[in-house]
Amino acid sequence: MIGKLNHVAIAVPDLEKATAVYRDMLGARVSNPVDQPDHGVTVVFVELPNTKIELLRPLGEGSPIAGFLKRNPDGGMHHVCYEVDDILVARDRMKATGARILGDGEPKTGAHGKPVLFLHPKDFTGTLVELEQV
Amino acid sequence: MIGKLNHVAIAVPDLEKATAVYRDMLGARVSNPVDQPDHGVTVVFVELPNTKIELLRPLGEGSPIAGFLKRNPDGGMHHVCYEVDDILVARDRMKATGARILGDGEPKTGAHGKPVLFLHPKDFTGTLVELEQV
Repeated sequence: MIGKLNHVAIAVPDLEKATAVYRDMLGARVSNPVDQPDHGVTVVFVELPNTKIELLRPLGEGSPIAGFLKRNPDGGMHHVCYEVDDILVARDRMKATGARILGDGEPKTGAHGKPVLFLHPKDFTGTLVELEQV
Repeated sequence: MIGKLNHVAIAVPDLEKATAVYRDMLGARVSNPVDQPDHGVTVVFVELPNTKIELLRPLGEGSPIAGFLKRNPDGGMHHVCYEVDDILVARDRMKATGARILGDGEPKTGAHGKPVLFLHPKDFTGTLVELEQV
């Protein structure tokens, strides 16, 4: 079912510093910061030849990554996002296998404007997994 | 400098269960388990169209992922591996920028039989980074 790894999301407390690490130390191509107020994050995209790293900093009140950064003040890997062809097929497969979908169990519009689901880390080897329809 | 994301490594306490999650729930193609006694892990490779997920379980005494699993008993994302063309150029660049290389600072032979370096998470947004010459 899952296709490509769409991105690895890394939550960071200092987006300028994290951007400099990827641009200047690791020599990668990075975007300008993009505010995503609907998702409570500001994002810098690190473009690799085969996938993306997304550096995320909290934006506004109640950011979904605020709690993670409290537990991990240096930052860290927050989630992985796998692509799927059909988010409703993916949802039904997750429900059939007993995997917990976060929130109300229905797809939402994700940060790339496409339908996404987030899956419970306890059901996925301790890793927060996003599924995105592409 | 960095090229492709070679893999995301996920440390897991139960390799059979983690393999089943990726094979049966997420519908991905997975390898048989491969013991890597020199690296203190048993690995299952999850083959995605653009990169790999490596599921790692400790093997033997003093496994490098044993401490991580003590802190994260459900498992979790352990490191990311970026490809580089020349590990010595990468080493010199890391030293010049003040980034800390783990161990004695020299490349070692990694789990794929190629030269690798591991970089200090504190210098890389809280994320353990492996560089692998390909």
